[in-house]
Amino acid sequence: MANQGDIKSDQVIEAGAKWIGYRPEVKVLDCTVRDGGLMNAHGFTDQTVRAVYHGCIEAGIDYMEIGYKSSQKIFSRDEFGAWKFSTEEDIRRIVGDNESPLRISVMADAERTDYHTDILPRDQSVIDLVRVAAYVHQIPTALDMIKDAREKGYEVTVNLMAISTVSEWELDNALEALAESNTNAIYLVDSFGALYSEQIQYLSYAAPSGKAVGIHTHNNQQLAYANTIEAVIVGASMLDASVAGLGRGAGNCPMELLLGFLHNPKFRVRPLLKLIRDHIEPLRHELGWGYDIPYMLTGQLNRHPRAGMEFNEQEEEARRDIVKFYDTIIEED
Amino acid sequence: MANQGDIKSDQVIEAGAKWIGYRPEVKVLDCTVRDGGLMNAHGFTDQTVRAVYHGCIEAGIDYMEIGYKSSQKIFSRDEFGAWKFSTEEDIRRIVGDNESPLRISVMADAERTDYHTDILPRDQSVIDLVRVAAYVHQIPTALDMIKDAREKGYEVTVNLMAISTVSEWELDNALEALAESNTNAIYLVDSFGALYSEQIQYLSYAAPSGKAVGIHTHNNQQLAYANTIEAVIVGASMLDASVAGLGRGAGNCPMELLLGFLHNPKFRVRPLLKLIRDHIEPLRHELGWGYDIPYMLTGQLNRHPRAGMEFNEQEEEARRDIVKFYDTIIEED
Repeated sequence: MANQGDIKSDQVIEAGAKWIGYRPEVKVLDCTVRDGGLMNAHGFTDQTVRAVYHGCIEAGIDYMEIGYKSSQKIFSRDEFGAWKFSTEEDIRRIVGDNESPLRISVMADAERTDYHTDILPRDQSVIDLVRVAAYVHQIPTALDMIKDAREKGYEVTVNLMAISTVSEWELDNALEALAESNTNAIYLVDSFGALYSEQIQYLSYAAPSGKAVGIHTHNNQQLAYANTIEAVIVGASMLDASVAGLGRGAGNCPMELLLGFLHNPKFRVRPLLKLIRDHIEPLRHELGWGYDIPYMLTGQLNRHPRAGMEFNEQEEEARRDIVKFYDTIIEED
Repeated sequence: MANQGDIKSDQVIEAGAKWIGYRPEVKVLDCTVRDGGLMNAHGFTDQTVRAVYHGCIEAGIDYMEIGYKSSQKIFSRDEFGAWKFSTEEDIRRIVGDNESPLRISVMADAERTDYHTDILPRDQSVIDLVRVAAYVHQIPTALDMIKDAREKGYEVTVNLMAISTVSEWELDNALEALAESNTNAIYLVDSFGALYSEQIQYLSYAAPSGKAVGIHTHNNQQLAYANTIEAVIVGASMLDASVAGLGRGAGNCPMELLLGFLHNPKFRVRPLLKLIRDHIEPLRHELGWGYDIPYMLTGQLNRHPRAGMEFNEQEEEARRDIVKFYDTIIEED
């Protein structure tokens, strides 16, 4: 091969020598119910959520994200299921006092969460981790949410949404502000499934020192798992994944793949396969998540998966016409 | 992030600055009919093969591999379709004299091809490229096949099969021998879909200078596309992919994804989507290729996908029991 032999071959060999090990500080977060909830208006039955909870415990997973903490003033219980709101009662109905090593997380969207009132002091809650989800222009709100949750005693991450649409100077600004905050980790969120591994590397290096880096991917280009393990290689230590990849649109990094890569002996794949067989795959037809050509195209074009989701809500016959979808989406470009 | 900031950040930034371009020397080979033929005993109809041929031309693809060149003494026409043998007449029935820029390739398996007689002199054939497929212990045979095909006037590659099972000293030996041959390229073939990106990098660097490197992947761990683009980044210049990923077991790198990454303006995705809609997706139920949990497990365990293929040939009810598959395959380990 021409002219690349000396670029990074030493590092590659070094990496090769190390790849069989594992980094004990790497934590895995299951977002099946939270991200998958975007496919059924957060309407998972208690039975399903309980199965995910017990599956996560048996599999040795570090965190389970049970849902959003959305404002009940903005969103109605008539339109959305319990996991849009994840009240203390909702969560305790599933986990009791959570007498397990699995930590419980919720997602709090900037501008859609009454965080001052709805996030209780830590000692009144079974929640362990509050994840503040914010687009780059919402950083000031996110900073206040981080402060609030930390002062109440929680672990906190900030999840920078749709990072594939953020310009470098915006990112620099955002990261500078977040470096000053007391968030425990900064998550890079590839909401559109648009990033390639070089971009994952680049963005990971951009994160301020002293903060753990997290990664949340979508599978529009069949890169959710690949980009997650690329992030691990360049130092990320909080990894989102979901059982059978269940998540919005093309879905997320599949947990069963990720645990295979991580090599940490505390993880078990078999309980996940049981969970997939008995509770997750039976939902496939109704929820319809997973890689397909329309989601591939929105990912390649760095767009919200909305158009793909609408296309996929059509009758089966109409869904087959991927050429029509292509023509429509290119036209809009 | 701790202690990785200085490992390769400069290179990452450099790569980031270049990623939007394309390398004109990168060639793409469509293996839909050849690798997909492993799912239907090479029995694609002429209509399907013709559709793939025209789709490849319209999409600007460089090579189309139309089938194997297997011995008619070893294998019977009663058991296998035309694309197991790909005689000159078979091929001309589809492509005529191939008055197109698309080059035609065939795969010649070591020890299963009567190459002295069945591979005609170049000026009597519409074939452009002969790909010699060999396991590492078949290198001596492969060397004779390379010599034969080159002397007859063909472009030649050698495809090192099941490379995830080859030890380093065997690989060194094999590559040393192949460096002396006059093969145009050396392909690394991840037959089991077992490799991670670090291994792709490592293996790519192992190739002798002066030979182009090719990559052929399988999607057992949802890494076929990711590993293919990783190979491009580290210098590979011959890339296998198939339409909708159609190929044995979990399938190959999907061509429609790959063309999106390569950015070469000569490529067109729309004809592929038409081909997928009209000719490939209608075969999905019968052929049943693509990522699933059994194939994931054989990939993670670095095994031939055979066990997954047998599992998937069962009735739908039995196929759902992925826990049973897991228990069986772990037991065998």
